[in-house]
Amino acid sequence: MTNRQPYTRKLDLKNGRIDMSHGSGGKAMAQLVDEVFVKAFANPLLEQRNDQAMFEVATGRMVVTTDSYVVSPLFFPGGDIGSLAVHGTVNDIAMAGAKPLYLTAGFIIEEGFALKDLDRIVMSMAEAARAAGVAIVTGDTKVVERGKGDGVFINTTGIGVVPPGVSPSGDRARPGDAVLVSGTVGDHGVAVMSTREGLSFETSILSDSAALHGLVAAMVAAVPGIHVMRDPTRGGLATTLNEIARQSGVGMVLSEASIPVREEVAAACELLGLDPLYVANEGKLVAICAPEDAETLLNVMKSHPLGVDAAVIGTVREDSHRFVQLETTFGGKRIADWLAGEQLPRIC
Amino acid sequence: MTNRQPYTRKLDLKNGRIDMSHGSGGKAMAQLVDEVFVKAFANPLLEQRNDQAMFEVATGRMVVTTDSYVVSPLFFPGGDIGSLAVHGTVNDIAMAGAKPLYLTAGFIIEEGFALKDLDRIVMSMAEAARAAGVAIVTGDTKVVERGKGDGVFINTTGIGVVPPGVSPSGDRARPGDAVLVSGTVGDHGVAVMSTREGLSFETSILSDSAALHGLVAAMVAAVPGIHVMRDPTRGGLATTLNEIARQSGVGMVLSEASIPVREEVAAACELLGLDPLYVANEGKLVAICAPEDAETLLNVMKSHPLGVDAAVIGTVREDSHRFVQLETTFGGKRIADWLAGEQLPRIC
Repeated sequence: MTNRQPYTRKLDLKNGRIDMSHGSGGKAMAQLVDEVFVKAFANPLLEQRNDQAMFEVATGRMVVTTDSYVVSPLFFPGGDIGSLAVHGTVNDIAMAGAKPLYLTAGFIIEEGFALKDLDRIVMSMAEAARAAGVAIVTGDTKVVERGKGDGVFINTTGIGVVPPGVSPSGDRARPGDAVLVSGTVGDHGVAVMSTREGLSFETSILSDSAALHGLVAAMVAAVPGIHVMRDPTRGGLATTLNEIARQSGVGMVLSEASIPVREEVAAACELLGLDPLYVANEGKLVAICAPEDAETLLNVMKSHPLGVDAAVIGTVREDSHRFVQLETTFGGKRIADWLAGEQLPRIC
Repeated sequence: MTNRQPYTRKLDLKNGRIDMSHGSGGKAMAQLVDEVFVKAFANPLLEQRNDQAMFEVATGRMVVTTDSYVVSPLFFPGGDIGSLAVHGTVNDIAMAGAKPLYLTAGFIIEEGFALKDLDRIVMSMAEAARAAGVAIVTGDTKVVERGKGDGVFINTTGIGVVPPGVSPSGDRARPGDAVLVSGTVGDHGVAVMSTREGLSFETSILSDSAALHGLVAAMVAAVPGIHVMRDPTRGGLATTLNEIARQSGVGMVLSEASIPVREEVAAACELLGLDPLYVANEGKLVAICAPEDAETLLNVMKSHPLGVDAAVIGTVREDSHRFVQLETTFGGKRIADWLAGEQLPRIC
């Protein structure tokens, strides 16, 4: 009678629902952890079953990043909150040029949430983590009363290791640098918004949600001195470039025509009253590098499956106003300011 | 004009409220991050202002742990969700015998939440982190619509470094080992429940919320070979000991009379229909060590301010049933099983 399980019946993953006891710290929570989380995330660190996971490190640099995911709806074309919670955090690690190693997972679940949906989300997280080569090594489960949450919120925190000689940072953009984007912008936000608004288009628009660490590994192998990498999530490409301009104390001039936007995304944006430059992406990155590295970097990006639509979209300039400007297709210029209000609530 | 701020007016921390734009990724969010979070948590890693924090490590062992905090009410006697979110995660690191280094902080805020309360909570987190010697190095802010959250939920994830030769783990309890607790049990849960139920007692009951890494450092310095340490939070002392019994494949016999419980906590528990052995603690730990180390460990604990009421409360036994048994003051024995239902919802 080793490792006695303290519960008598299996959880009903088909018809069961979360109740307050699943967050109590007692028997019901232990069972949920065993039969949903540990089952899906199975790895030796998690199976230590302590309140923390222990791992060995070698002298060097590491990064840590955290994100909470509150996307609504939980399931959308091209992904769900589970895969998104893995991709988003893996990408924030990758943007430091780092190799992602470990994720933690914290769940805040609303009373009454269907175990079937929770299990589906957890399986999707597990699958995304496996594909990205990261282990989910420790976690936490809380339950809140009906009406005090919204299905499930997930926090993931990630740890990665940075290769020697690689130091991208938002404050390293320099006048003359080239600005690149890894592909079409706006896909994720439009996919989520279309679902939320009940819109359907002739071509279904899928979220671009994807783990970018493989693309990044290829990029830093070719150009270790990349100045800046960042994923344009909430606030979209325009807001991300404004953040970098502010951090680096520079301006940028972009060529509007060179920014890749899918035709169906552009059409949906018009219908929804959105500007694709401010719409969230979950599988794209912005890279800024010295002008002499731009061609090499672009070629490396284009030869990776997640960078086939990569493009050089502009140049960093001296600018005491830190403006991000767009050269329009008609030859004019306009300022692409920070997102001021709220374009898309709960997009990630 | 260096480091231009993109906003024109300061946030109104006295009368302002969170709106959806504070979670948008745009200008309003950047301002919230600057004027509430970065201001309070100020440290060089956070001020990198990237989506991840980079730090140097030396070869060795690290631990990572995560917890989401959903305590209700947000403010309670002896603490608030902010200090709790620091103490709870610092303690989970400390239970590995590790020195806590860095925390991440993820906020899920309900639309309409008062900026004044958010600022108070963030200042409390900052103060608790400074006192514990940990830096909050990266964070994330999400906003959900009114009625889809409950004020604020906070996730903290912690990273710590484990000294050589120290390896406490829940699976290392051995027959004959001594079981110690660092002080009175039930204080936190009763403090929160009393507030929630609007009860007041002659003596006010305070949460024991505290960072235990200093106590742990003294303990592992004296007895590096401590077998198990764990903080009895949700589910209380009884559930924590059952978890350890299950992990280690042993039983335990505790002497009920030796378990320290404050008189006013015992009285409040009677009134509330609670058993103090199942009530959450946030500044206490359970330690299990070889019998020959018990006296040394007890003395070290008692001479630390957070361990003055420490006691040896029982012994580990061989038991194929993994039972945790209580020898009652009347000479009988009863099984202290896992918490089965939900004793205290949203206690941490």
